[in-house]
Amino acid sequence: MLNGNVIVGQSGGPTSVINSSLVGVYKTAKDCGVRKVYGMRHGIEGLLNEQFIDMDDYIQSDLDIELLKRTPSSFLGTCRYKLPDADVNPEVYWRLFNILHKLDVKHFFYIGGNDSMDTIKKLSNYAKETGSDITFIGVPKTIDNDLAVTDHTPGYGSAAKYIASAMKEIIRDAKTYPTDSITVVEIMGRNAGWLTAAASLSRAEDCTGPDLIYLPEVEFDHDKFLNKIRELKKYQHAVVVAVSEGIKTADGKYVCEANKKNMFEDSFGHKALGGTALYLADFLGAETGIKSRGIVFSTLQRCASHIVSRRDITEAYTAGADAVQLALNGETGKMIIFERISNNPYQIKTASYDVNLIANVEKCVPLDWITDDNTYISKEFYEYASPLIIGELSPFMVDGLPRHLFIDK
Amino acid sequence: MLNGNVIVGQSGGPTSVINSSLVGVYKTAKDCGVRKVYGMRHGIEGLLNEQFIDMDDYIQSDLDIELLKRTPSSFLGTCRYKLPDADVNPEVYWRLFNILHKLDVKHFFYIGGNDSMDTIKKLSNYAKETGSDITFIGVPKTIDNDLAVTDHTPGYGSAAKYIASAMKEIIRDAKTYPTDSITVVEIMGRNAGWLTAAASLSRAEDCTGPDLIYLPEVEFDHDKFLNKIRELKKYQHAVVVAVSEGIKTADGKYVCEANKKNMFEDSFGHKALGGTALYLADFLGAETGIKSRGIVFSTLQRCASHIVSRRDITEAYTAGADAVQLALNGETGKMIIFERISNNPYQIKTASYDVNLIANVEKCVPLDWITDDNTYISKEFYEYASPLIIGELSPFMVDGLPRHLFIDK
Repeated sequence: MLNGNVIVGQSGGPTSVINSSLVGVYKTAKDCGVRKVYGMRHGIEGLLNEQFIDMDDYIQSDLDIELLKRTPSSFLGTCRYKLPDADVNPEVYWRLFNILHKLDVKHFFYIGGNDSMDTIKKLSNYAKETGSDITFIGVPKTIDNDLAVTDHTPGYGSAAKYIASAMKEIIRDAKTYPTDSITVVEIMGRNAGWLTAAASLSRAEDCTGPDLIYLPEVEFDHDKFLNKIRELKKYQHAVVVAVSEGIKTADGKYVCEANKKNMFEDSFGHKALGGTALYLADFLGAETGIKSRGIVFSTLQRCASHIVSRRDITEAYTAGADAVQLALNGETGKMIIFERISNNPYQIKTASYDVNLIANVEKCVPLDWITDDNTYISKEFYEYASPLIIGELSPFMVDGLPRHLFIDK
Repeated sequence: MLNGNVIVGQSGGPTSVINSSLVGVYKTAKDCGVRKVYGMRHGIEGLLNEQFIDMDDYIQSDLDIELLKRTPSSFLGTCRYKLPDADVNPEVYWRLFNILHKLDVKHFFYIGGNDSMDTIKKLSNYAKETGSDITFIGVPKTIDNDLAVTDHTPGYGSAAKYIASAMKEIIRDAKTYPTDSITVVEIMGRNAGWLTAAASLSRAEDCTGPDLIYLPEVEFDHDKFLNKIRELKKYQHAVVVAVSEGIKTADGKYVCEANKKNMFEDSFGHKALGGTALYLADFLGAETGIKSRGIVFSTLQRCASHIVSRRDITEAYTAGADAVQLALNGETGKMIIFERISNNPYQIKTASYDVNLIANVEKCVPLDWITDDNTYISKEFYEYASPLIIGELSPFMVDGLPRHLFIDK
C-alpha cells in the first residue's frame, strides 16, 4: 500500500505516447488506493512555482483515460529545466521538498529522457543524503531512443512508425514523376541515428525505401555523398535520401552549421539543429543541376498521435504502471527499463535500473549495424526495430479530426 | 454500351485520392462491358512514347481495388506535359490519335487539375475539328481546390483533413512548452488559399487553431505581420501561424523570393515556390529575439493517404464513375463537376461542364471570406469546408505500415 500522495511530471521533448505513461502512473496509483495524484504543470519548472493540478479534475471517466492515451505532446506541459547541483544551489531543493511536504507527496515520478533522468538522479540522491522518505522514479520517454541500458524507449516506436509511413508516401510521390529529382528528408537525432535508421523500415514488398541513409554516428563526406547520388542517377529518375539533422563532417561540425549565422543553444547547452536537408538539397541542386527538394519532418515526427504504434502505447502505459509498483516496493533512484527476450516472436520484460548509470549517457546505433560505406543500415536494425511499430490505436475522430484531452487554462 | 476500349491517365501533382478516381473509371468501364481499360504511364507524355498498361494486369481482385483506393500518389505515374497547340505542332496530335486508333480506344479520360483540363480541351477540340469519334472527358483532381465551376475538387478534402489534423498536433506540441516560441507553418497554394484556409478547421473545442492565417489572395505586409505577432505575444507564450507558400507583397513578388537566388520554372511557367515559412521564421526571430521555427508540410499534404477523408475518397470514385457514364452518353470535351445542394446536411450532386470554360481558369477563396485585417478566415469557409473532411478510410496495415498497390517496372 502506498502511503501519502503521488506527483507526476513530464519533461523534455514531447512524444505521441508520453500521455500513455501518464495514464499508467495515474491509473495504477489510483487502483492502489492513492488519494491524490498531482500533475506538475511544465515539469519541475512549473512545480517550483507551485503550478500543479489534481489529475482527478481532468480524468473523470474511462473515456477520458482513453482520450488521454490518444493525446499527443505532454498533457501536463513540459519544460527544459536543468536542476542545479544541490551543493551549488540548495535553496531550489529546499523549496521543492517543501512543496512536496505540503502536498503530502511520498512518490515522485518523472516521465522523460536523458536530461529528465538527470533530475531524478539529483533528487533521489539529495533525498537519500537528507534522510527524506520520498521516492523518485524515472519513466523513460524519448523518440530519440538514446537512453542507456533499456532495450528501447517508449515514444520511439510511434515516431519510427510515423517516419516509415511518411517515407513510403514521400517515395511514392517522388517516384510518380518521369523527371529527374532528388529529395532529401531530414529526420531528428542529434547524436543518435535511431530515428533516421527507421526510414529503412519503409523498404518492403511495395516500396524501395530511401536510396541512401546517413546517420550521425559516422562521418559525413560531401564528395562521397555527391558521388553516390551521381551513381544512383545513372539508373533512376528519382532519388530519395534520409539524413539525420545531426550529421557531422570530419572536422566535427554539424552539416547544417554551414547554413546558419548563429546556433541557438538550450539550457542543457544543446545546439538547435535543423536546415540539413535544405542545405544538402541546395548543394545537390547546384552540383548536379537536378531539381532537389528538402523535406523536414520537424515536430510532426514526435506528435503524430494519429498514427501511433499500439505496441508503443501499451509499453508506455506499462512503464508508468511498473514505476508505481517500484515505488510501492520502496525503491527510489531507479528508471524502468525494457529487456528484450526475443525478436521473433517479440517478447520483452520490464525491470528497473540505477538512474545514476543511465542519466547523461547516450546510446547510439551500433557501428556494426551501419553498412560498410556508411550509406545504409543493416538487417540487424530491421530485426530490432520492426516489432516496435506493430499495431494501431485509432484516434477518436470528432468532426473529421482526432480529438485530444486538454487543460483549459 | 461503350464501343471500343478505354484509356485513362493521371496528370499533374498527385493527391491521396487520385487513385480512387482511377478505380471509378476502371470499375465502371468494366461493369459496362469494356474489353480493355488501358492506363497511360506518366500521362500523355508517356502515352506519346507508347507507354501504357492493361489495367487488368494489375487489378486482379476486389482486394486490389480496395488497395488501390488506399494508395497515394498517381498509381500510373504522372507528368507535367504541356500539349502544344494543334496549329503549331499537329504532328503530336497525329502521333497521339494514331496510338489511340491502334489500341481501338474510343474513350479517353484524364484525371487532373487546371493544366490537365487544358489537355482535354485541346484534344476534344481537335477531335471535333477532325471528325474523330473519340470522346475526351476530364476528371477533376487537385488538392489546391482551384478549379472553376465545380463546388470543390477531389483531393482537397483529404489534404484539408491532413492539414487540420497536423495543425492540431503541431499546436499541441508548440503550446506544451512554458517558453516563448513562434511557429510558422507553410502550406501549399500558389494563388489560391484553399489549403492554407483549411488550417482553420483545427480550431475546435480542444484546440485554439492557428493564431493567424495568411492567404495569397490578399497582399502580405511584413510590418503589419510583425505588429500582429507582437500583439499576440503580450498574452501567450507560443504563437502558431499558417501561411500560404504563395503569399506576395505589394510589389507582386512572392515572399519566398527574398530567400532565393533563382526560381526554377516548370513547363507551364509556374515558379517553384517554397521557403516562405523559413524566411518568415528567420525574419521574426531577428526582429523579436524569440525562438522561431518554420514547418513545411511539403509533399506530405498531398500524399498522406493514411489519413484521408472518406467523403473525399467516395466523391473521387464517383467523379471517375460518372465520367464513364458521360462518355457512354456520347459526351466529349466535358469535365465532371460537383454542385452543392446544402451544407447541413451536406448534399452534392454531380454534373458536367464544358471544359473550355474551366481550363486555365483559377478559382480563389472569395475575398469576403477573408477577415477584415487579412489575418483569418470567416465562418462561411468553415461551413463550406468542414463537411469535406468527414469520415475515415483505414489503410490496410502490413507489418505496421500502410500497404500500397504498385507497378513493378
